[in-house]
Amino acid sequence: MAGAARDRRARALHLLNHRLRRTGPRALQPPDHPAPPGRSHRTTRLRRTAPRVRRGRGRPGMIWPMTDVTGLSIGILGGTGDQGKGLARRFALAGHPVIIGSRNAQRAQEAAESIGEGATGAENAEVAARADIVIVAVPWDGHKELLESLREPLAGKIVVDCVNPLGFDKQGPFPLPVEEGSAAQQAAAVLPGSRVVGAFHHVSAVLLLDPAVEKVDLDVLVLGDDREATDLVQALAERIPGIRGVYGGRLRNAHQVEAFTANLIAINRRYKAHAGLRITDI
Amino acid sequence: MAGAARDRRARALHLLNHRLRRTGPRALQPPDHPAPPGRSHRTTRLRRTAPRVRRGRGRPGMIWPMTDVTGLSIGILGGTGDQGKGLARRFALAGHPVIIGSRNAQRAQEAAESIGEGATGAENAEVAARADIVIVAVPWDGHKELLESLREPLAGKIVVDCVNPLGFDKQGPFPLPVEEGSAAQQAAAVLPGSRVVGAFHHVSAVLLLDPAVEKVDLDVLVLGDDREATDLVQALAERIPGIRGVYGGRLRNAHQVEAFTANLIAINRRYKAHAGLRITDI
Repeated sequence: MAGAARDRRARALHLLNHRLRRTGPRALQPPDHPAPPGRSHRTTRLRRTAPRVRRGRGRPGMIWPMTDVTGLSIGILGGTGDQGKGLARRFALAGHPVIIGSRNAQRAQEAAESIGEGATGAENAEVAARADIVIVAVPWDGHKELLESLREPLAGKIVVDCVNPLGFDKQGPFPLPVEEGSAAQQAAAVLPGSRVVGAFHHVSAVLLLDPAVEKVDLDVLVLGDDREATDLVQALAERIPGIRGVYGGRLRNAHQVEAFTANLIAINRRYKAHAGLRITDI
Repeated sequence: MAGAARDRRARALHLLNHRLRRTGPRALQPPDHPAPPGRSHRTTRLRRTAPRVRRGRGRPGMIWPMTDVTGLSIGILGGTGDQGKGLARRFALAGHPVIIGSRNAQRAQEAAESIGEGATGAENAEVAARADIVIVAVPWDGHKELLESLREPLAGKIVVDCVNPLGFDKQGPFPLPVEEGSAAQQAAAVLPGSRVVGAFHHVSAVLLLDPAVEKVDLDVLVLGDDREATDLVQALAERIPGIRGVYGGRLRNAHQVEAFTANLIAINRRYKAHAGLRITDI
C-alpha cells in the first residue's frame, strides 16, 4: 500500500475514534470542527472505495460498496488459543499488522513468533490500547471479566466478538444460556463506549491454521446494530481468501449464530468434516 | 413406482408403526414375533437401498446409504399456510400422495385443489391419522394445543416440525423464548409416543410456490435423536430438486436452527434475496 494512502486511512481512523470517544458511537454527525481544507467531512469517516462488481460469488451483476480496510492493525484478545491464532495467522498473511494478546505477554510473544509474518505479542490491555480493531477470541469462561477490565482502552473502537458460549457432555455440544442473550450482547453491555460486532463464530481453527488450506470456504456472518462497523468487519473477513462477509442481522440475533456452532460440531462429527456455512441467493 | 415395491414399503411401514405403538419408539428390537417366511426382521424396518455415490455435491467420492422414501404419503398440518402449501406442492410434484390439513376441511380441500398434482385435503385430525409422515407447519401460536389434540393419531409416526417461533417488531424479526427450548422439543414433549424430527425451517415459501423455480438451492438441516427418523427425513428433503438433507444435530440443538430464520429474514431484507443455507465441506 502506498504511504500516502496509509497516512490518509490512519488519519481517518484516528479522527473517527477521537470523535467516538467524545460523543459516543451514535453521535458522529454533525461534526463540531471545520472540515480540513479541500475535503468534506465525509472523508473523515471510514473511506469507502468505489462500488465494485463482485464476480464469481453473489448474485450475478450485484454491486455493493466495500469498505477499504487495508493496513488496519488487528489486535486479538485470547490470540494464543487456536481460534485466535488461526485468525491472527490469516490476517498477518493478508498484510495486516497483527498484535496477539494474552494475559501473559511472554505467551503472546511465543504465539506471535509461531505465526511469523510480522505478528507481535503483548498483554491483552496493551493490545486493546494499540490495535485499530480488536477481536475477542477468549474462552467464554472469563469473557465478561476480561472485557470489563478493558473498558477504557476499548472505548471508541470496533470490537469483534467471536466467542461461542458452549457446553459439552457425553451427548456432544450444546449452547449455554447467557444472561445478556449472547456473548456479543454481553460485550456490548460491558463496553457501552465501543462499537461491538459479532463475527467469525464458525471459522474452523483447524482450517485457519493449516498451511495446506489456501482458501477457507465459508461465509462469515457479521452481526451488529452499527452499519459502518458491520460493513468494516465484512470487509475485514474478506481479507481471508475464500471467505465472504455477509451481514447476518442485529446484535439481538447473535445468540443463534453463536449457538449454531454446536450444530456445526455435531455435523463435523457425523460427516468427518470441517463444516462451515454459505448463504445462498446473495 | 412398481406396485410390488409400494406394497412392500407399505407393509414395512405398517409393521414399524404397529410395533412403535405397542413398544414405544426406543424399543424396536428384539421383535416378539417370528420373521415372515424367507425374510429377516431387518427388512420389516424402513428399507435402505444400497449405498450410492453422491455426485456433484458433498465430499468427492463420499458414500452413504439413503433411505428410500418413494411413495410414502405426507400429511401437512397447517398446509393452508404458505410454508405448508409450498412443501405440499413440491412433495406432490415428487410423486408423493399429499394430504393437506387444516382446522377447516373445506379450506384444506381448496388449498389441495390450488396445488393439484393429486393432493387432497382434510381436517388436521384425519390427516394425522391417514398420513405415513406428518409435517407440522402451523403458526407458532397454537402449536402446542394442536399437537396435544393429535397425540393419539400421531403416536408411532414420524412427526416433522418446521415451526419457527419468531416475533416481529419495528427492528425486524427476533426469536421468541420457548419453555421447552424449541418448537421441536415442545413437539417431542407433547408427543412422547411419536418420533419427532425438526426440519425444513429455512425453506422459502416463495421459492417453493414459484412455478418458475425448478431447483431450491439449500440444505435442509434435519435434527433429532432418532437416527432412523432423521435419515428418513433427510431422504424426504431430497425429494425436492436442489435440496440436500443434512443431519444438523440433536433435538436439544434445534432452537438455534429455528431462531436462525430471524437472521435469514434480516439477510433477505438487506440483500433483497430469498436466502438459504448450505453447509460446506460435506
